[in-house]
Amino acid sequence: MDVKEESLKKHYEWNGKIEVVSRCKIESRQDLSLAYTPGVAQPCLEIQKDISKSYELTRRNNLVAVVTDGTAVLGLGDIGPEAGMPVMEGKAALFKEFADVDAFPICVKSKDVDEIVRTIYLISGSFGGINLEDISAPRCFEIEKKLKEICDIPVFHDDQHGTAIVVAAALINALKVVKKNIADVKVVINGAGSAGCAIGKHLLSIGVKHLIMVDRFGIISRDMSDLNSAHKEIADQTNEELIHGDLSVAMRGADVFIGVSAPNIVSRDMVASMAKDAIVFPMANPTPEIMPDEALKAGARIVGTGRSDFPNQINNVLAFPGIFRGALDCRASCINEEMKVATSFALAGLISDDELCEENIIPPALDKRVAKTVAEAVIKAAHETGVARK
Amino acid sequence: MDVKEESLKKHYEWNGKIEVVSRCKIESRQDLSLAYTPGVAQPCLEIQKDISKSYELTRRNNLVAVVTDGTAVLGLGDIGPEAGMPVMEGKAALFKEFADVDAFPICVKSKDVDEIVRTIYLISGSFGGINLEDISAPRCFEIEKKLKEICDIPVFHDDQHGTAIVVAAALINALKVVKKNIADVKVVINGAGSAGCAIGKHLLSIGVKHLIMVDRFGIISRDMSDLNSAHKEIADQTNEELIHGDLSVAMRGADVFIGVSAPNIVSRDMVASMAKDAIVFPMANPTPEIMPDEALKAGARIVGTGRSDFPNQINNVLAFPGIFRGALDCRASCINEEMKVATSFALAGLISDDELCEENIIPPALDKRVAKTVAEAVIKAAHETGVARK
Repeated sequence: MDVKEESLKKHYEWNGKIEVVSRCKIESRQDLSLAYTPGVAQPCLEIQKDISKSYELTRRNNLVAVVTDGTAVLGLGDIGPEAGMPVMEGKAALFKEFADVDAFPICVKSKDVDEIVRTIYLISGSFGGINLEDISAPRCFEIEKKLKEICDIPVFHDDQHGTAIVVAAALINALKVVKKNIADVKVVINGAGSAGCAIGKHLLSIGVKHLIMVDRFGIISRDMSDLNSAHKEIADQTNEELIHGDLSVAMRGADVFIGVSAPNIVSRDMVASMAKDAIVFPMANPTPEIMPDEALKAGARIVGTGRSDFPNQINNVLAFPGIFRGALDCRASCINEEMKVATSFALAGLISDDELCEENIIPPALDKRVAKTVAEAVIKAAHETGVARK
Repeated sequence: MDVKEESLKKHYEWNGKIEVVSRCKIESRQDLSLAYTPGVAQPCLEIQKDISKSYELTRRNNLVAVVTDGTAVLGLGDIGPEAGMPVMEGKAALFKEFADVDAFPICVKSKDVDEIVRTIYLISGSFGGINLEDISAPRCFEIEKKLKEICDIPVFHDDQHGTAIVVAAALINALKVVKKNIADVKVVINGAGSAGCAIGKHLLSIGVKHLIMVDRFGIISRDMSDLNSAHKEIADQTNEELIHGDLSVAMRGADVFIGVSAPNIVSRDMVASMAKDAIVFPMANPTPEIMPDEALKAGARIVGTGRSDFPNQINNVLAFPGIFRGALDCRASCINEEMKVATSFALAGLISDDELCEENIIPPALDKRVAKTVAEAVIKAAHETGVARK
């Protein structure tokens, strides 16, 4: 049985991957009067006096909504809100498993940006954080931006930032192995959707100076007239030499290739045209832009993919559980750039200098140390930037 | 320590009364690939082909949203959405405890009927049912009505129907004790908010013919010009003699008094003016319209209240867990009048003729047989009325 068939069978057995349970026993009249009426009036009145008490007297201190509209689910595209829910439930299961965060999956039956924003805002008083998931670009940028403006709890689009944070961690360590300076390397990102744009911005945050973004129409350059707002923003900070051309032009002489695009679109020749000690992260799922063995044969020194069956799996499960653990624990009002950068460095720091090598630049997805280390880094950065409320 | 202080202390200890847990283990790469990527693509695609599969492949088969806008929380009034959440979490805990239903508490930060309706509709694909709670009248009528029109899952305003169903069950048995026929008795309901109107309608459904509704301005009569739409609807079916006057006028000669109004507003004289073998359900919480001992001294034969420290507690925890258990199990598209009537008779039937007496007309709130019995009655009625989808 292949993994898809087995997964389907398991899903029928699980009958849902999450469950809501009670934290209080209700076995006697006395229990009932404490957990429910008449006693429950008292915590209600405390929250009415001071809304911040909702973090102590209800579960929002540990509760994150995992929200999708089903428009960009995995690589499957716009499959509809209900059909996206197995991914959201899986995400919720990972939140619990890795960071003891209660995550509740919600799908929104609308594709209208403002309506989605309004819906999530209106239910946000029930949660301590919002994890957006599998929403198509460029709508996801707008939805996240608008929500961040109106919500006083962290809003985080994992497809963008989770991926960006883990890629950056892998890059930090890969550069240590090849002994190149982050400010000097030339980085090419292929794929300028939500993940690609977020990776680009985040790499600029951690010190990359020379970045070229490529989409299916070729290299993105600020002198182009037909850029959308997300591409315009990134174009202003990238491709300073205003190079035009396709991916093969972009990759010539590059030190780093990062792919969040499509299977098999990078050739051995393209990798061979890169600089010495090239770092190649072909992360298209499940089939990478180039298979690791091909990339290595073509001269790449370090390869990382999204897959668990090759070394250096770049998996955002390394980031989101610990990030929300940290944000919830210090009651952060947002997840800011500094908290994301701190996460990348904390993740990179989990590989000691002794362990660090071409095939070990990033902790494995199931490493149980990760969430705690990430949470600590997030809390420190939240306090330093004044967004922690506890 | 009184119950309010102790409840507050407990709420700080509980740190939230509900929790979201995982139903699948994620300990190996293989687990991760089944519960999450890449395997999870398969259940997503199955649901895309057939949305009804969402009931098998995600948790909505067992999941109810408990939704409030915080405008009519307990007897506390409009305390705000976040402040209503301890009640919603308590309700969720009761759902789990009594009927193994996963219930998730959500507060909506809006008081606009259409916006609340739209918000709940847009997230309804995540759930198998919607339990509305503590929403002020007459907005609650409109919200429930509009949601029922657009949702294909059960929508149930518990403050209305839960209370009505349990009152009806208590009345059915009380009438057996006093040997009066439901079609002959004269019933007075004091309080014409959401619970009072729902009780009125439901009693008409189970066979009451002579009903008088009273609100704080006196007896409601169809010849009044200033009735709101909810009162107009009930006025058309009640007070056939067009009696006018206050509560004391209404109660004169009545067989049954049902109070969902305010503390201490029924006097001994008013009870004494009722018919022989009067049935008195003063259910204002926590202080009833008249204390049970006073009512009995004044000549009432059977008294039931909302309180657990007197006999005959009329508590809607007897209804909602089993109703949703049944509705979820047969995948009902709604909770219709027949299902509610069936619940009242099923609840009444749980007291055998041998056990039935003045002080034992309704099962106790913690009776573990109740939810199963109610669920069976609900499933049967759903099949008979063609709303069961499984």
